[in-house]
This record gives sequence, C-alpha cells and structure tokens, in this order.
Amino acid sequence: MNKVVNLEEKFKLFKDLWSPKRIGKLNGQQILLAKIKGEFVFHKHDDEDELFLVMKGQLELVLEDRAVILNKGEFFIVPKGVLHKPIAKEETHLLLFEPLSTKHTGDVLADITVETYEEI
Amino acid sequence: MNKVVNLEEKFKLFKDLWSPKRIGKLNGQQILLAKIKGEFVFHKHDDEDELFLVMKGQLELVLEDRAVILNKGEFFIVPKGVLHKPIAKEETHLLLFEPLSTKHTGDVLADITVETYEEI
Repeated sequence: MNKVVNLEEKFKLFKDLWSPKRIGKLNGQQILLAKIKGEFVFHKHDDEDELFLVMKGQLELVLEDRAVILNKGEFFIVPKGVLHKPIAKEETHLLLFEPLSTKHTGDVLADITVETYEEI
Repeated sequence: MNKVVNLEEKFKLFKDLWSPKRIGKLNGQQILLAKIKGEFVFHKHDDEDELFLVMKGQLELVLEDRAVILNKGEFFIVPKGVLHKPIAKEETHLLLFEPLSTKHTGDVLADITVETYEEI
C-alpha cells in the first residue's frame, strides 16, 4: 500500500545531477525528482508532455523560439514535440510529472541518458 | 502556448472551499488546486489514482483500514478503488494530480459536487 512521501526527505537521499529518481506512479504517469546544474542537451518528447516544477533554485528552459525562467514554486508544461533544453546556473531541484514511458533525454541518446530511473 | 504558472499566485485567485480549480493539463491528466476545511464525503474513484500534495496546512486522509496525516511538502497517492475521506481541521491548500476524467466526489453525487472545474 502507498505511503506518505515527504519531498524534502526524498531530496536528501541522492546527490547525483541529471539523474531523475522516481518517487511515485499513478495512472501510467510518474513523479520524478531531479537535481541539476549546468546545461542539458536539446531534446524533445514526440508523444509526451512534460511538467517541470522548481522546488529550489532557478530553471531556464530554452524552447524553440523563446526561453522561460522558472523560480521556486513555479511550473511549466513543455508540450509534446517541442524542443527544449534545461539550464540551471546554480544547483536546482525539480519535480517532474510525465508518462512512465518518458526518457529524460527524449529523442537524443546522450552519455548522460539514464535508461531506468531508480526508485527512492 | 503554455505559460509559467506560479502556484502561490494561483492560490490567491480563489477563496471557495471544496471547489478544485484547474491550473494545467498534460497527457490526459490535470493539475488542480483546492482549498479545503472541514470534512469531505467518503468516496472512491473506480478507475483513477489520485495524488494529494499539501502546500499549506494539514490533511488527514481517512482510508478504509487506516488514516494518514500529510503536512506541507508531503503527498499521498490514493489508488483507484480505495475509499477515502479528506479532512482538514484548519484551512489547507492542496495540489491534486489526476486524470481529466476524475470527479472530486468520485462515485458519490453530493451537494458539493462540482461538475466542471474552473480553469484559473
């Protein structure tokens, strides 16, 4: 049976960057936590919308025609098919909502691609 | 095109209790905000898991065989088919993640049932 999940406690369980951890599953979707710093690769998800919620720090999402800045307590939904590149100048903590099938590097296979997310 | 959503700003846009507001849609799912105080009705969702994340206050979820307490920054996923009854002693603010098809009173049609969620 499911348990109460404390977001702050879960963030304490890992330090590695750009390596999302799964903290919940529902309706074919997953909830991930990630710590990021620096620049990620430009990528897209052909069939999946992806929500980024900033829990700490600041996230810049570079899109095809613009960029958006997200601070703590703000989220943005990147629609399926839209190229995006996350950037964080300082260490930033994210909560992600997306389908279970989503790969974090989308259509790009990079050295940093994590094939299977660890559950924490 | 989607916009950056600030959760705190969205909570300022409504005061009514037990009336979820939609603040985002993705992958057939929706993100709702709700303000609650008091006791809701016991209900279940036969086909939908439902996530409750506490943004302010404290939520008690009475389940079939136990109850769980959620404080700020904690979430719980009520699996499909499981009877649950939300209770909040003080005004409590929630973020909900669930399928677009979900009715907040589930299988129970009550006076407080909202048929269509307002988008804010």
